[in-house]
Amino acid sequence: MKLSQLGEEALVARLTHGLPRNEGLLVGPGDDCAVAGRRNAPFWTLLKTDCVIEGIHFTPETGFARVGWKALARNVSDIAAMGGLPEHALVTVAFPGDLAVAKAEALYAGLARCAGEFGISLAGGETARSPGPVFVSVALTGRVERGRCVLRSGGKPGDVLFVTGTLGGSIAGKHLDFMPRVQEARWLTEHFRLHAMMDLSDGLGADLPRLARASGCGFELNGALPLTPGCSHEAGLSDGEDFELLFAASPRQAARIEQSWPFATLPLTRVGLLTANTPPSTLHGFDHFASPPRDA
Amino acid sequence: MKLSQLGEEALVARLTHGLPRNEGLLVGPGDDCAVAGRRNAPFWTLLKTDCVIEGIHFTPETGFARVGWKALARNVSDIAAMGGLPEHALVTVAFPGDLAVAKAEALYAGLARCAGEFGISLAGGETARSPGPVFVSVALTGRVERGRCVLRSGGKPGDVLFVTGTLGGSIAGKHLDFMPRVQEARWLTEHFRLHAMMDLSDGLGADLPRLARASGCGFELNGALPLTPGCSHEAGLSDGEDFELLFAASPRQAARIEQSWPFATLPLTRVGLLTANTPPSTLHGFDHFASPPRDA
Repeated sequence: MKLSQLGEEALVARLTHGLPRNEGLLVGPGDDCAVAGRRNAPFWTLLKTDCVIEGIHFTPETGFARVGWKALARNVSDIAAMGGLPEHALVTVAFPGDLAVAKAEALYAGLARCAGEFGISLAGGETARSPGPVFVSVALTGRVERGRCVLRSGGKPGDVLFVTGTLGGSIAGKHLDFMPRVQEARWLTEHFRLHAMMDLSDGLGADLPRLARASGCGFELNGALPLTPGCSHEAGLSDGEDFELLFAASPRQAARIEQSWPFATLPLTRVGLLTANTPPSTLHGFDHFASPPRDA
Repeated sequence: MKLSQLGEEALVARLTHGLPRNEGLLVGPGDDCAVAGRRNAPFWTLLKTDCVIEGIHFTPETGFARVGWKALARNVSDIAAMGGLPEHALVTVAFPGDLAVAKAEALYAGLARCAGEFGISLAGGETARSPGPVFVSVALTGRVERGRCVLRSGGKPGDVLFVTGTLGGSIAGKHLDFMPRVQEARWLTEHFRLHAMMDLSDGLGADLPRLARASGCGFELNGALPLTPGCSHEAGLSDGEDFELLFAASPRQAARIEQSWPFATLPLTRVGLLTANTPPSTLHGFDHFASPPRDA
């Protein structure tokens, strides 16, 4: 059987089944980041890797400084989704020999700009030759206070579901220039006890079922999503690469969060509830759960 | 200008010049691993990334379990070269859609075997689609006691240079199946105060000048290298991918190391000395330093 027949979710499930662990690993594959450390230590270490590939995540015409920003910012978004702060990045790049040196430098300028924005050190890397496309893989460490680490799996029936920002239309440019929600997640975990959180990378329609399933819950969506202007409800669910936060909090905490939300230019929207229903049986996206009307 | 005109060393120097750092980064790009942590903490964190690419580091015919072993073991070798123990690995793979599922599973089996051998957790990863070759990037964390961390830069004139194992001929198979020298490096750093250490990935002819330059020293080679049977002196210097340890110790420590070396099946060989000469002005390998006779 070929990978294309199996599908990504099934492949990942096969590949990550029964992997070696050690006593320092608190949370393994399946959440936004892995969590490592001693269980009762004041801080835990967060670990994440991600990649961007020419022809898949960007085109040869994309400005390479934006590619560099995106390659690191995707990982920063995952650290944020755990409630943590990013620390050290490792960068692996594979370049074809005929790439212009200026493009490689622009990529690094974008990586450095993102690192500077979030106080990250570019601690090391590897530069290899690619026989094909440009490939950029970034690994990022972070740290989070034990009491502020938020997993996907802590949601409870009745929890209010929030998203930050607007959904859909990322391909028009935001997917390259997005601002990871570190500041917002840090504020949330400083003042509130969130039950579950993740970042929206594949679209709410694919990611919300993942959070619900990890929490052993079902979910309901409200009619109205915070859509990027010009986007349909369906686009808001399925475009992906929003890199916004999705989180679950008790109704009581939810009301307090809304009252004190201090980020005037960033919308915070209730999009639904976790329920006691059977968790969604599939993770393949918005077409597998009851869609509200398109023009809601 | 194209990358192929610039060369890898010059490219890396350009890309890593002036990268963002933060206070938690003790050693940045340029050693086998980056080192992070508080300066006076009992343990430091080691960080390393590396990659293997189809068509560069292996062929489509290579057994994928061996590719998986190699992809992780390369990083383990770098952790060993700092005197540390590996802890958590993150794996990014990009596969073409027409790859057989069994090959992806074999790759992970090789990764898992190496992880199991060294007590490493496979903590997380990312699976992407490749429009070209198979690409495997691994990031690895490790830890080392502050007093046992060995950099490349601490060598002194008069230090004895040792290598473990034999040099050359790795392409015949060892480059896929090598055993990172964790056990040996841990024994060395437990009992002795090494001045400098690195792993041999590009061949002694390229790597020794790096260690010497990092230490502000020159070097001399003895006539005889510990060559893999069938290999010429030149092959021992330049084949690369030996994944053996190269280290420098004071003459007094050197004698004691030789007397107590407990690894009966692994040769330990004096290959030369660090000197007070001008550091080698170039890092481009064996042809830039005085080669002993071919049949030495």
